[in-house]
Amino acid sequence: MHKPFELDRQLLADTLPVGDLPMCRVLLMNDSRYPWLVLVPRRSGLVELDALDRHDRIAVMDDVHCATGALRRACSIDKINLGALGNVVRQLHLHVIGRTHADRAWPAPVWGNGSAIAYPQDAASTRVSTLAGYLAVTRDFRVTEGD
Amino acid sequence: MHKPFELDRQLLADTLPVGDLPMCRVLLMNDSRYPWLVLVPRRSGLVELDALDRHDRIAVMDDVHCATGALRRACSIDKINLGALGNVVRQLHLHVIGRTHADRAWPAPVWGNGSAIAYPQDAASTRVSTLAGYLAVTRDFRVTEGD
Repeated sequence: MHKPFELDRQLLADTLPVGDLPMCRVLLMNDSRYPWLVLVPRRSGLVELDALDRHDRIAVMDDVHCATGALRRACSIDKINLGALGNVVRQLHLHVIGRTHADRAWPAPVWGNGSAIAYPQDAASTRVSTLAGYLAVTRDFRVTEGD
Repeated sequence: MHKPFELDRQLLADTLPVGDLPMCRVLLMNDSRYPWLVLVPRRSGLVELDALDRHDRIAVMDDVHCATGALRRACSIDKINLGALGNVVRQLHLHVIGRTHADRAWPAPVWGNGSAIAYPQDAASTRVSTLAGYLAVTRDFRVTEGD
């Protein structure tokens, strides 16, 4: 019997839910400084990418590809930054971040660079809907139902 | 006619060659503070992971998986950090970094955290040989021949 998937509390606090791709929960980092998605494979107890078998690793990377495409369509982006760190939040999660030459941290990584600036309520809803719309081009995308 | 693959000068300067996996050149970051591999897909002009087709993206991730396994066997590691940033060096490259709770940057990311401390000559050769040995468990691993 598998334990049901549960999102880490810190990730829950820092993000807004966008929906589910086949393997991953898709979250928008509530930081208006960068278009920033966080993908969390919906498996209980997962910490490292290499703990997944090849089939599941490919499913994660397919989701990353979809998320990258949605970010590119929704925002003007000069460079994608992809990262799976997990030094603080242990639950496996992948950052897909759209960077521009004019953003606050460029060319440094965004992690640890100042504090998040939450989206104004309306801007958050709009960005989530826009991203969900582009992700929905993917056959198996579903809007997350109440966590 | 494809342009032949050529390693970015900065990557060349900062690393030691370990060998070639099926898709990627494997480099050891010449920074003794962290066990740190850099994987560079051997395609000319490549900047973003999502520019590759699915087959090639999977090949890259298979190489990342092999590199992760070699790092784990060669070193004592508490957490793997994976990153593809490319804000400074444009040529697509993926960082596979072994982190420990006792390392200098923990739990922060390693990028931009102090300056690299080059390996002493002997330690570099030993680490490269050890890693090459573990990578060679992978069928298609080849030692890089003169760049």
